[in-house]
Amino acid sequence: MIRTIEWHDGSVRIIDQRELPGKTVFIDCQTYQQVAEGIRTLAVRGAPAIGVAGAMALVLAARGAVTDEREALMAVLKKAHAELAATRPTAVNLKWGLDRMLNLALGMKGDAGEMREALLSESLRIAQEDEELCRRIGNHGAALVPDGASILTHCNAGSLATAGYGTALGVIRSAHSAGKRIHVFVDETRPLLQGARLTAWELKEEGIPFTLITDNMAGYFMKKGDIHLVVTGTDRIAANGDAANKIGTYTVAILAKEHGIPFYIAAPYSTIDLSINSGDQICIEERCAEEVTTIGGVRVAPGDVRVANPAFDVTPHRYIHAIITDMGIIRPPFSEKLASTLVAQ
Amino acid sequence: MIRTIEWHDGSVRIIDQRELPGKTVFIDCQTYQQVAEGIRTLAVRGAPAIGVAGAMALVLAARGAVTDEREALMAVLKKAHAELAATRPTAVNLKWGLDRMLNLALGMKGDAGEMREALLSESLRIAQEDEELCRRIGNHGAALVPDGASILTHCNAGSLATAGYGTALGVIRSAHSAGKRIHVFVDETRPLLQGARLTAWELKEEGIPFTLITDNMAGYFMKKGDIHLVVTGTDRIAANGDAANKIGTYTVAILAKEHGIPFYIAAPYSTIDLSINSGDQICIEERCAEEVTTIGGVRVAPGDVRVANPAFDVTPHRYIHAIITDMGIIRPPFSEKLASTLVAQ
Repeated sequence: MIRTIEWHDGSVRIIDQRELPGKTVFIDCQTYQQVAEGIRTLAVRGAPAIGVAGAMALVLAARGAVTDEREALMAVLKKAHAELAATRPTAVNLKWGLDRMLNLALGMKGDAGEMREALLSESLRIAQEDEELCRRIGNHGAALVPDGASILTHCNAGSLATAGYGTALGVIRSAHSAGKRIHVFVDETRPLLQGARLTAWELKEEGIPFTLITDNMAGYFMKKGDIHLVVTGTDRIAANGDAANKIGTYTVAILAKEHGIPFYIAAPYSTIDLSINSGDQICIEERCAEEVTTIGGVRVAPGDVRVANPAFDVTPHRYIHAIITDMGIIRPPFSEKLASTLVAQ
Repeated sequence: MIRTIEWHDGSVRIIDQRELPGKTVFIDCQTYQQVAEGIRTLAVRGAPAIGVAGAMALVLAARGAVTDEREALMAVLKKAHAELAATRPTAVNLKWGLDRMLNLALGMKGDAGEMREALLSESLRIAQEDEELCRRIGNHGAALVPDGASILTHCNAGSLATAGYGTALGVIRSAHSAGKRIHVFVDETRPLLQGARLTAWELKEEGIPFTLITDNMAGYFMKKGDIHLVVTGTDRIAANGDAANKIGTYTVAILAKEHGIPFYIAAPYSTIDLSINSGDQICIEERCAEEVTTIGGVRVAPGDVRVANPAFDVTPHRYIHAIITDMGIIRPPFSEKLASTLVAQ
């Protein structure tokens, strides 16, 4: 299996997801700034994956610091933390991964060498945990997938979006591995086509049957009775269960409701952000117009037109049938359950 | 104004809409087969426009026939009628235009020269009527557009989709001409991007303010309160008011309902097909996979994947607040009103 992100001989090796499925290109980042650039430009994307990338970037920051003096080293880490956190404002996992690393450093007593060592170990642990969490998410979620089910997914919440295995695609992988005869409808997911490029690629590699559709076809197939459930990932879950995810997820949730189809989201617990009460407080990243007006370098609209390009939308909790986490399936009402789940950690 | 389609010196001149907005290319069709190819490959598209194209193609068929003998000439026309009707199965206007021409020929007493003359006049009349109808649709529909309204439209139901002026864009043009301060949200309309390529181009030419979005963003802007009404065209309306239109229209209608936003369709009366009771009987054209897997020649998905590409969907009448026609605005319940409207012609 191709690794989305890994620590490789003193650098952070990421697969350049912008080049998939056409080319398999790896980028070896030597500095945290290179990782930040990779996150910003979506060479690495997916909420859990950028959490791991951020953590590993802080290892590069610590190793790249010219000082061994504690205060100065912490200053470097804090600066890197701030720069990395600003690359993608919506996903909580990035902030979570960065905070976990910084808190480790803040709490440490050792010298610079020990700190660098501990940070590396912690980042590898985050990556390993992420893959294990995904497998647990997959196993929990597979129970919700009936034999013979046809499943719609949006964007890519697969192994490429995580340290491995995937969240929404983890559920699909687990159901498939368990011998269930499933079929996947893959929304292409404009503007950046993560569904067409990445999810289709992963499913093809795994031999899981699927049909690629444009985003505006899902309603048609739901009406025909061809889709039995929806599962997507999420970048941030508010305390009330509202969930931010790739633009278009909200539309899919409304379509699912209108057709009486269950809508599930799948995510590790680190995606839950109890510091915000509702999805209204989630900052929605606005990306550049060119992502909409060009595709693969080909211009698809007249020049000099006004474009909107919100990268995410928020699906209110009332549309969500269950949140599939590594700690089990959480069903509505979400408010109390999410809080108690977190406390139980 | 650029003409979508016109009779030009013995040939049918169409603007090649596949090349817009990048290039303005005209195709002069000398034979009905060339027009059929233009319709099939979407060089000319839009329900009313292909109705006009079909009618003019029969003029080419009549003029191209090597015989002046009546029976033989009728056989040529019938063959051309069948070939042209088969190019796009969903829109009723194509069949309507072809039938009108064939019926004229069948009912005529004159010789071959007179018949060719009469067919040409009739096709020009159809084109002229279409533009006049669109202006009436626009005027009726403008009354539904409040000053300051933000309007979502899907695909292209503009002058490019008709002999001129447009249906849904006719409503928008009329409201704008009347001095209403409107803003348009333009769905790009995958797979063939008629919104991004054609509607954006028309609105830019007209100086009507708009924002281009991907299809999966409409829900986001509705939730924000940025969209106040939806108006689209339609390719066929069943007797109960169900309406077929470009894939994704059904999704937009559901989103509108969920957000309490009126959803209107705009079309000439020739779009109403009383021969079918409901939208379930409308044949949905399935187009080739390459329209989904490539954009402007650029491959956006892995090779050899299964793709679905229904070109249309059906919006059930219960989602439609009104049908804006040249004969006025028809509101639910549609069944009786549509029937009586047709009888009143």
